Amino acid sequence: MSTTHLTDDCLFCKIIRGQIPSHKVAETDKSYAFLDIGPLSEGHTLVIPKYHAEFMHEVPDEYLADAMPLAKKIAVASKLQYYNILQNNGKLAHQEVPHVHFHIIPKNSQEDGLTMGWKQRSVDQDQLKAKLAEIKQNL
Amino acid sequence: MSTTHLTDDCLFCKIIRGQIPSHKVAETDKSYAFLDIGPLSEGHTLVIPKYHAEFMHEVPDEYLADAMPLAKKIAVASKLQYYNILQNNGKLAHQEVPHVHFHIIPKNSQEDGLTMGWKQRSVDQDQLKAKLAEIKQNL
Ligand SMILES: [Zn+2]
Ligand SMILES: [Zn+2]
Repeated sequence: MSTTHLTDDCLFCKIIRGQIPSHKVAETDKSYAFLDIGPLSEGHTLVIPKYHAEFMHEVPDEYLADAMPLAKKIAVASKLQYYNILQNNGKLAHQEVPHVHFHIIPKNSQEDGLTMGWKQRSVDQDQLKAKLAEIKQNL
Repeated sequence: MSTTHLTDDCLFCKIIRGQIPSHKVAETDKSYAFLDIGPLSEGHTLVIPKYHAEFMHEVPDEYLADAMPLAKKIAVASKLQYYNILQNNGKLAHQEVPHVHFHIIPKNSQEDGLTMGWKQRSVDQDQLKAKLAEIKQNL
């Protein structure tokens, strides 16, 4: 395995390299999947790119493209019905390890798995249009 | 655009087809992105595959592979620092429209954006090993 894109001092880079043991579920040449040892529900799995980056927007497209099909394969093998895919960027957004990871979190009841608040903002058409123009300027 | 994989009675399929207006951010041949009109924070965007499926594990790999690079492009154009990527499967897991969608939710403060509960289960090595064996049997 190429370790060119990994770092020496990152927990997840060490897991990919096998320097720290993990409950490996599957891997491809671009992604590595293992059980979360602090699961929100049984079968909570992480899919991580074999590329060290703190934020999703820093990961090369080919690694991002690989992650979700692998998550799907694991969801199928785990026979998941209801679940959340979650990827957090930044401590404020609940990221704990600064190496991009996609959570696959089975949801079996109201109580287990991921629980969330969903406080929608009231927004008018003009605000949406202004925001859209702002984003599109940089696309 | 091919509409082979869309249905007639789905809100998001209609948005992709242009039968219902949306604040379109960007699109590729496999994905469509638009502003959420009930945003959790300013710039809350949805990326959806141009393939009708209720659950992520029903979406063909090539559509899944396309979604995340597009989300990245939008995160960069939106100049996001902290944010969550979220994809919910099933009503119990907070899915509201039964067409797969990836939320890009900017997180600017503790209060806005996505808020979550994170209740880890205590689990021992044997339970993790048993679960791992169960999943791997089906991989
Ligand atoms: Zn790393
Ligand atoms: Zn649809």
